[in-house]
This record gives sequence, C-alpha cells and structure tokens, in this order.
Amino acid sequence: MSNRLDGIAASNGIAIAKAYLLVDPDLSFERENVSDVDHEIGKVHDSFSESAQELKVIKQRALETLGQEEAEVFEAHITILNDPELIGAIEQKIRDEKLNAESAVKDVTDMYIEMFEQMTDNAYMQERAGDVRDVTKRVLSHLLGVKLPSPALIDNQSVVVAHDLTPSDTAQLNRDYVKGFVTDIGGRTSHSAIMSRTLEIPAVVGTESVTADVHDGDMLIVDGIHGKVVVNPTDEEVKEYQQMADRFAKEQAEWKLLKDADTQTADGHHVDIAANIGTPDDLSGVIDNGGEAVGLFRSEFLYMNSAELPTEDEQFEAYKKVVEGMNGRQVVIRTMDIGGDKHLPYLPLPEEMNPFLGYRAIRISLDRQEIFRTQLRALLRASNYGKLAIMFPMIATVDEFKQARAIFDEEKQKMVEAGNSVADNIEVGMMMEIPAAVLIADKLAKYADFFSIGTNDLIQYSFAADRGNEHVSYLYQPYNPSLLRLIKQVIDCAHAEGKWAGMCGEMAGDQIAVPILLGMGLDEFSMSATSILQTRSLIKRLDTSKLQPLVDAALDAESNEAVIELVNQLDIKD
Amino acid sequence: MSNRLDGIAASNGIAIAKAYLLVDPDLSFERENVSDVDHEIGKVHDSFSESAQELKVIKQRALETLGQEEAEVFEAHITILNDPELIGAIEQKIRDEKLNAESAVKDVTDMYIEMFEQMTDNAYMQERAGDVRDVTKRVLSHLLGVKLPSPALIDNQSVVVAHDLTPSDTAQLNRDYVKGFVTDIGGRTSHSAIMSRTLEIPAVVGTESVTADVHDGDMLIVDGIHGKVVVNPTDEEVKEYQQMADRFAKEQAEWKLLKDADTQTADGHHVDIAANIGTPDDLSGVIDNGGEAVGLFRSEFLYMNSAELPTEDEQFEAYKKVVEGMNGRQVVIRTMDIGGDKHLPYLPLPEEMNPFLGYRAIRISLDRQEIFRTQLRALLRASNYGKLAIMFPMIATVDEFKQARAIFDEEKQKMVEAGNSVADNIEVGMMMEIPAAVLIADKLAKYADFFSIGTNDLIQYSFAADRGNEHVSYLYQPYNPSLLRLIKQVIDCAHAEGKWAGMCGEMAGDQIAVPILLGMGLDEFSMSATSILQTRSLIKRLDTSKLQPLVDAALDAESNEAVIELVNQLDIKD
Repeated sequence: MSNRLDGIAASNGIAIAKAYLLVDPDLSFERENVSDVDHEIGKVHDSFSESAQELKVIKQRALETLGQEEAEVFEAHITILNDPELIGAIEQKIRDEKLNAESAVKDVTDMYIEMFEQMTDNAYMQERAGDVRDVTKRVLSHLLGVKLPSPALIDNQSVVVAHDLTPSDTAQLNRDYVKGFVTDIGGRTSHSAIMSRTLEIPAVVGTESVTADVHDGDMLIVDGIHGKVVVNPTDEEVKEYQQMADRFAKEQAEWKLLKDADTQTADGHHVDIAANIGTPDDLSGVIDNGGEAVGLFRSEFLYMNSAELPTEDEQFEAYKKVVEGMNGRQVVIRTMDIGGDKHLPYLPLPEEMNPFLGYRAIRISLDRQEIFRTQLRALLRASNYGKLAIMFPMIATVDEFKQARAIFDEEKQKMVEAGNSVADNIEVGMMMEIPAAVLIADKLAKYADFFSIGTNDLIQYSFAADRGNEHVSYLYQPYNPSLLRLIKQVIDCAHAEGKWAGMCGEMAGDQIAVPILLGMGLDEFSMSATSILQTRSLIKRLDTSKLQPLVDAALDAESNEAVIELVNQLDIKD
Repeated sequence: MSNRLDGIAASNGIAIAKAYLLVDPDLSFERENVSDVDHEIGKVHDSFSESAQELKVIKQRALETLGQEEAEVFEAHITILNDPELIGAIEQKIRDEKLNAESAVKDVTDMYIEMFEQMTDNAYMQERAGDVRDVTKRVLSHLLGVKLPSPALIDNQSVVVAHDLTPSDTAQLNRDYVKGFVTDIGGRTSHSAIMSRTLEIPAVVGTESVTADVHDGDMLIVDGIHGKVVVNPTDEEVKEYQQMADRFAKEQAEWKLLKDADTQTADGHHVDIAANIGTPDDLSGVIDNGGEAVGLFRSEFLYMNSAELPTEDEQFEAYKKVVEGMNGRQVVIRTMDIGGDKHLPYLPLPEEMNPFLGYRAIRISLDRQEIFRTQLRALLRASNYGKLAIMFPMIATVDEFKQARAIFDEEKQKMVEAGNSVADNIEVGMMMEIPAAVLIADKLAKYADFFSIGTNDLIQYSFAADRGNEHVSYLYQPYNPSLLRLIKQVIDCAHAEGKWAGMCGEMAGDQIAVPILLGMGLDEFSMSATSILQTRSLIKRLDTSKLQPLVDAALDAESNEAVIELVNQLDIKD
C-alpha cells in the first residue's frame, strides 16, 4: 500500500526515483574511561584518514559538477584533518585522561570551536568554527560506524529527502542524479523552493513529516505540480503519474514555442516579461526562455562570493556582461542588499535580535557610503553598454530615496566632469517592499523613475511574519486583499506620475496572481527564467477587458482563500 | 567647564545629582600556573564569602524596597555560592592543574553554564545558566579587587548612567535615591524610557556616549524635558536648571488641578484619556492621575511572574480587581501577548531568527487554545464586576479575528448554559498594530467592536525597523505621513461602521502627535498614567475646528520632520 503526503508545490514537474535521506545520523556516544589508550589513538588516526579519503572524493565530485569555488570548502576541511596540532591535542587528551576516542575528539574540537567563535570581531575565524564543526561530525561518524549522508556522494537517480536544504546542500546537488526533492519545512519562497525552480527540479516542500515517514531507498513520486508525494507507489500509481509527466512534458513543449513570441494578452495588450537573475551566468537561461528584459539583477553575488569587498573594476565587468548581453533590452540592477540573512565574512555587521528588521540594504549603503559609491561608479561605467536601470532596495521613506538618488547624481556628475562617458537614459527606481514606502508611494513617484514590487519582503513586513518561520507560515498570504491593495496603490501612484511599475517577487510568476496583476495594470512581470514561458502562455489567454470585475472583487474580498476561489472561477480559454 | 550631551527626552523633569556608573568593570585576567595552590584556594574561599555577604546586603535592600519576588533572585545566587560541589570542583581544578584562582573559577563556572545552556528543552535550567554567569562576575570582581556596581547598592542621591538598563536593573532601582538616569542607547519606546516615565524619574536616553564621557561621581544635570545632559555644571547652570525645575514643578501643580476635570477641547468636544497598565497595582496611579478608563491592561504579568501557567482563578482575581477598581469605567484587557521578546520559563517557544516576526500573541493563542480558553473564562467571570472590554493582540487577517471571536463566543455560551452570570455588554475588539490589518480595516470593522492602535509595533512593522535596534533607530518616525495615513484609515474605518478607535501606543501621550490625532477624530487616548494630566491640559487648549488644516497638511507632507514643523507652527494658547 502506498502512502501519500501533502505539501506545498514548490517546483513544477513529476519525478519518480528512490529516496536519499539527507538527515544527520545519531552521533551520540558514552563518555568512557579506557585502559588501552593506544587502541583509542589508533581509532582516531583511522577515522581521520577515512574522513580525509571521503572528503577527497566529495571534493573531486564538487570540482567536476560545481566548479572550483564550491570545492574549496572541502579542501579547507581536509586541511583541518591534516593539522598536527589538532590530532596531537586529541592524543594528549586520551593519554592524560584515559578517555575514549569519541570523547577526546569532541572535547578538543569543542574547545577549538569555542575559541574561534569567541573571536567575534573576526568573521573569518568564526567561519572556521563551522568548518571544525562539520569535520568533527564526519570524524565521529567514522568512529561510530554510521553513514553521514552527503549530497555530493549521490551517484544514483534519487529524490533527496531532508528537513530543509541549506544553501551549501543545494550547491552540492548533482542535477544528473537528483531528480526531485521533498522537505519537512519551507514555503514557496524558501531557499529550497527557489533553488528547485532555478534548477528545474520538481519539488514539494513543507510536508512537515517526510523525513519521519520515508526511509532511505523508498520509492517516491514527487508531484511538484500539485504538491503531493507518493511513498512506495503501486504500479497503477506509477503509470498514472507517468502519464501526468508526459502531459506536463507536452505542455512544456508548447510553452517552448512561445520563446520568440511577443507577450500579448488575448485582446492585444502588451506587457513585459522579464527575468530575475543572480549572476551573469544566469543570462543564458533568460535568453533561452525568451526573457524580454532583466527586471532584477541581484548584485549580492559579487559581495558574497568574495574574500573582500569587490573592486569597482570587478563589479564593472559583471554589470557590463549582463547589460551588453541583453542587447539593448533593459537590465535593472539592484544595489547591494546585504544584511538580514546575508552576511559577509569581511564586513562585520552588528548582532541583531531581528535581522530582517535591521541594518541591511540601502540602510548600510547610506551609512557606509564608500561601498555604495564604488558600486554606483561601476554601474555608471556599465551604462555605456546597453540599457541600464538602477534600483535601491529597502527604501522606507522619501528622505532615504532622495539621499540615495543625490549620491548617484553626485557620482554621475563627477564622472561626466572627469570626461568619462555615461549613458544619459539611466532610470533610477526603487524596490517597493516596505509598507511605509507603499503608503507614501504618491510622493515617492515624484522622485523615482519606476517602482519594482518585492513581494517576498512586502508580505513578510505587512503581515509581520518571517517568511522562513514555519510557525507563522500560514500568514504568507500573497492574495490577501490587504496585500493586493498595497500592490494596486503602487501601480496607481506610479501611473499617476507617468512612471512604470513592475514586480520582481515570486508572485510575478504565480499563475493565480498573474490575472489580478494584469488587471491592475502592472507593466512588467519579472520572475525566475524558468517561469517565463508558462506565464507568457497564460497571459496570451487572458483578456484584460474582462479582468476589471476580478480585480474589483479581489480587492473587496475578505481573505486569501476567497481570492483564490475568484481566480479559479475565471474563464480562461485553453 | 561643563560639558553637554544631547539625547532623547525620555521622561519629563529635571534632576541634579552625582553620577553612579552602572557599567561592567574590566574582569579580564591572565591564565597562570601557580605553585602555592593553598593560597589560591584560600582566595577562592574569601571571594565566595565576600560575594555571599554582599548578596545578603543586596537581597535585604531588594526585600525592603522592592518586595519578596525581586529579592528571590539574590537568594538563588547565594544558594549557588553555598553549593559544595561547585567550590569542590574549583579546588580540585586548582590542585590538579596548578591554576590560579581566577582561571579555575572561570573554567568550572563556564562548564556549568554550558551544561545548563545545553538543556534547551528545560527553560528553568537555562535560566540557571544566567544565574551562574551573574555569580561568576561577582566572584571575579572580588578576586580582582574591582567594584561591581549594583543598582540595589545605591544609597545616595544619584543619577544612574548606563549603556542601557535591563528590566532586572530597573527592578532594583530605589526611587528614594535614584533621581534620574541617562543611557547610551534606546529611544522613547525602549524599556528604560517606558520605565522612567512609569517611575516618574527624569531620563535622557540614546546619548550614544554618556558611559564614555561621564565618570563615577561627576555632577550631572538631567534635563528630561529637552533631552540634554550637563556634566559638571557651573554654578550658573545649576541655578538656571533649578529655575527650570521650579517652573516644571509649577506646571505639574497646575496639571494636578485637572485631575477631576472632564477632558474637553477648547471648543467643547469630549475625548477619553485612559491609562495603560501592567498590573492591578498600577490602578492607584490611574486614579491619582484622573484616568477616565483603562485603555490597555497588559495581561502578560500574570504569565511572566509565575512558575507555571496562571490558573483561571488567579487570572480572575487580577482582572476582577482592576474591573471593580475602575468603578464602572471601561477596562480594556488585552489577551496574552507572549513571544517576541517575552518568554516564559515554563512554556518552551521555538528558537526564531526574527522573533518580532514570529510566533507570538494571538498566533500562540489560536494554536494553544487551552491557554487562550482559560484566559477567556477568567475574563468572562470578571465581566460581572464592572465594564469589561477584551482585545486581541497581533491580529493580521480577518480570519484570525473571526476565529478568536468565535472561541470567545463559544466560551461565553458554555458559561451561560452552565448557569453562570456573564455581562452582556462586553466589547470585543483588537489591536491595530500590523500593517496588513490596517489595510483591511474596513472589513475588520464589521466584526470588531473597537480598534486600539498599537503604535510601537505598527511603526516597527511599517518601517521594517526593530524598535530596539540602535542601527535603524532613525526609522522610528511616528509623525511620518505614511504612518499617519495608516492611523487615519483605522479611525475612518471604525467610524464608518459606527465603532470607536483608540490608541494605546506611546504616541497617544506624545505632545506633538496629540493635536493631529485629535484632528483625525481619535476617540480614546490611552497612555502612561503619568502623562494623563499633561495631555488633558494640552487638549483643553486645542480647538478641533481648527485642526483640520493641520491634519490635511500632515497627511500630505513628505517627512517626519516636516510634520513636526507643522505642529510647532500651530497656535496653541497658554
């Protein structure tokens, strides 16, 4: 008998493969005194060399499939294992205290970890604490003879099952083998969900219990279209889902035909479908999927994949590549959005009780202007290679926007005066992701050239609910009329001043939201490249002249569910 | 020459006294090996008995001035010092490792702290970690011969100078001696600031540098009216400020005459001035200051001053006392607002990355209904003793309010069916403190009997800025038109459905905000009892018919500063 689990559909598609449980094993042990200290020391040496051996394999795999950068973390782990001081201290501890190997390893590594962690003004050393912690887990797994799962070791077609996937887990996933994934926690905007869409791997998140209900090696069907998981399916179920997978493949093929099509509604109204990207390498996906612009180029990768602040030249090269690569189509680059859950090893930020309500994004840029000005200069130089627009993240007040824009104007002026060429059509806009900014959008529209609605943060702040917190995930309500009213206000205020309004949050590619957003007059829909064609297909089937009643009813509804119901009743032709 | 510091005026009044620096001393020491272990062990014993002696004095002071409960924490500290296992382990460590006393004390206590902290499912043991940490500090101060300041040891007229004041610090302050306080950090809504108003002690917060600029024993003038501190004032300055203090005392005397006056504007329009209270003991302050109602009775004290969940009877007694004590005037009791920064030792809550955006208040009540229903039953029983109203905190959606109200109706029905008497005029309302709720206030007004605007949280969420985070304190903008527009929407939506709207945040007693709020038609102003008379005096001098232009201009302004300017230009008669 098969067993079914419900979750949140995070990434379209059907996967059928065996489960690979990515769950930390039980690494507990007894603290014991031993008589044969040499035996214990021998065990330590064995576990160190087995761990090093395993890490070499993982490192090689990472190198082949993920590249130099991802592989380096494992090299760091191997270096720790080769540190004579570390193994010396463990030996000493075993001899002095006649301790068993596990206890001695744990005591000594704990001491290192604590020492590194206490260097609170040195982010590099604090990261080393994490490395020592990872290495200790691996060594203990060998001492205790239990398997430590590693995403890089997957070498069969698998569905990865985990409580949650960390960025470092997903970085190690090999797309040739990982056919789907399922997690206990998370919603449509969790890191795992966003990664699954970028990698085009079917995924179901937020099942609450998959790691408890599924055993390693169980056969799984992941239905990422409807958010269902079937554990150990019957033959009939496999057949049924294979048919569904075929239909989905056919639909995808039809979408692909729209690659070079204009995005037009059934009644001939044009909107732009743009893509959100994270690095210049994502550009090929935008072009393959027929993206008409880049609506959001997050500049964080430059800061995060680096050992120090990126130079003006490094930034210029990256911006130029994207601006040039889009061949005259608009590229909106967002200035640095560091802070919140994104930290830089070389830029110490204050410890905060609520980092999402803290020192981040434009708040840092206005405070640490030397970082901001370097970025602006790199952007100004890149403006010569195509159609660049710039936007500021986390603007809450008119003053902040005016300050940021004044700094931009100053840097532009200086470059012009120094005889450097700068495009004269650079639009300067802002993210609309803080309620206070939406409430004063009429004033902001006088200063900003455009607005881009960031729904992930806007929802989180409007409902006062951390989007990563499973205990309040029921408050992630993108269709709630209260949020729709905020969105409408942004669009109306932009249009009243002759400006345009786009959306670069997850919601822009959400098939329930698109008819409402289109009805409200949103000008640009910016989404994961992999959602573009499906959305273009939907928009071609919608008639804007018939959407006004839907918008009115949605704005006047009482709940998220009521709005979903309204959209589901909409007559959309096939 | 005197030196002047600027800060935020947190509590009205002038204080002139010597500085008492409440700053942790340098407790660092060298790790050393010793030959004379008995000498080190002797030092440990001495420091333990000196610490115990000191704690007995502090405990006695706390008992006299603060009561049994506050004193108990010091008894717990003494118990730790008397634990033979602890001192035994330290002796052993000195003997085994020939360590100096400081290092041995630190090593052993660190081990205890870590052990307690690792019991993450046992909040009681985790609190013990804090106790051991406090005791260790005291013991080290004696070993190192440095003074460890303690608020309970103040026995001269003083101005307390601190980086920030914790709730435990303020609990120990003796009002007979502490004449004022000044802190480095915090804003008008920080814990220190709110406490200073409750205790009616002049205070200036957020000076950024007072702990660095002032030495223990310096003479200080604290000007809590204008947010200034004068360090080592000249005779002229002392004279000038004494005159100001006299004027302020005269003003206060005039306010006192308004105790039994009706709160009427110059043009005869009545509004209610109510008080925010935290315990039944605060009732006398409300009555002494002529409060016309209790606009917010926070029920958290019942949960926080307790070793387990308060029983229905315990709650009933507390609610009855307040409802009865107000003699038929309305008392609005807010259901439990736990979570965020308020944790209960006996109710384990999830570890959260952003607790202000997490599992708190009504979110817990709807999830843990047994706790909620007990509270509602206690409230229903108390309704027989006066005019009770109930409100729910942190409502974000219409569904949440409907759910909470349905549970209330169910419990009421059950009580009536069981033949118990229940008042039939209990109003059931909600806090307006989440942007999403304000945006859908028109719908909520159909279900709620009243709204009470909680400005502290509403500002924090609207601007996405933690009100306790000094790095984003510039975004605490209560007069920003974006916030004023939200407030106006709450009032208008309530009135459209024939309901009333109050405000129970700090802003309701803010002299800049009051004219605007009055102009917008706010029905009830609920504030610290100590602000009531001053606000009544202000309202009596305002003419509502002339406030409409102010409201229009404020709503159409661009910034917080522009609105302050508008209010300052207002012609208010003396």
